[in-house]
Amino acid sequence: MNDSQFSSKLLENAINEFAKLPGIGRKSALRLVLFLLRQSTEEVNNFGNAFIKLRNEIKYCKRCHNISDTEVCSICSNPKRDEKTICVVENVKDVLSIENTQQFNGLYHVLGGVISPMDGIGPNDLNINSLVERVSNEEIQEVILALSPTMEGDTTNFYIYKKLATSGRPVKVTTIARGVAIGDELEYADEITLGRSIVNRTLYQENV
Amino acid sequence: MNDSQFSSKLLENAINEFAKLPGIGRKSALRLVLFLLRQSTEEVNNFGNAFIKLRNEIKYCKRCHNISDTEVCSICSNPKRDEKTICVVENVKDVLSIENTQQFNGLYHVLGGVISPMDGIGPNDLNINSLVERVSNEEIQEVILALSPTMEGDTTNFYIYKKLATSGRPVKVTTIARGVAIGDELEYADEITLGRSIVNRTLYQENV
Repeated sequence: MNDSQFSSKLLENAINEFAKLPGIGRKSALRLVLFLLRQSTEEVNNFGNAFIKLRNEIKYCKRCHNISDTEVCSICSNPKRDEKTICVVENVKDVLSIENTQQFNGLYHVLGGVISPMDGIGPNDLNINSLVERVSNEEIQEVILALSPTMEGDTTNFYIYKKLATSGRPVKVTTIARGVAIGDELEYADEITLGRSIVNRTLYQENV
Repeated sequence: MNDSQFSSKLLENAINEFAKLPGIGRKSALRLVLFLLRQSTEEVNNFGNAFIKLRNEIKYCKRCHNISDTEVCSICSNPKRDEKTICVVENVKDVLSIENTQQFNGLYHVLGGVISPMDGIGPNDLNINSLVERVSNEEIQEVILALSPTMEGDTTNFYIYKKLATSGRPVKVTTIARGVAIGDELEYADEITLGRSIVNRTLYQENV
């Protein structure tokens, strides 16, 4: 679709802005803009301001680096959470994914990425030092490494493990279980995952 | 995804706003919001303001009812366009579609819908009277009806045809050709379309 064919610069500009988003092409952008044009002025003002407000006012929790409206996020400041367990994740999305499982009641630590020399991301680009500080200063008993089971994730796991081991204060370091995903057919599981799931087999429990 | 699990009201609000758009679910909304968070404040301000500005400042051309930044749209005010031919379309999107073909050099008239008793849309809800006025007052030679070949489109075509026929000033009324789409296999064309394409066959021209 050629830009010059729009009769309105405002329309063209709005379409261009939508088309900058990942996964939204110019045709979808046009459809979304025409949808917004059918909404009331107030609704569109709310729409646009939601993102402006988010970008300008959002904070990152100074304790766990999670996205937050306040200096310390609602998870870190919740007295019902177990403050002795830290789950280390790559990004904010992973916090949401784990929260959605409702299986974890501890605190988080958002690294902001994983060590990836190919992308020029080294340990100092990540929130690793603040993790070591938390372990040294707070009464942490367990650090759960919940990074993706990729080369970069494993490298980062190993780096953090070494850092914590040499930091003086003993702490239990665990990783999330790797194994055959629930609902998957065994024959489609890759060899490494299947092999690991045999090595790391767990005691059979009824009703689990 | 449960709303209450977000650590930030601002984030939640931004996700809700995206999820109101057609075809965007909560997972996509989260992805888009996290993308915006990685952009600069200025870029996000431009993003949000593009829609606010569009919704607050957009005008509809007083001549053809097309979307416009000015009182009269850039198509109507373009001296290079043929002012004697009006193409009647359902909505703004159809103007863009026809403009993209680069096969039409006349002016448009945007009805703002088609007659649809099921949806409670009658002739008076559409820009039909202003079309009849344009034909009466301007030197119009041909009115091309470019509505969708649906029951509602055909009803609207007939209504406009009758209105123009009884308005006093003679004008040629045409409709866009219906037939087998270019690139389609004949065996998949429906009977009515195929039948019409035989009745309305055109003289074979080389190189067309």
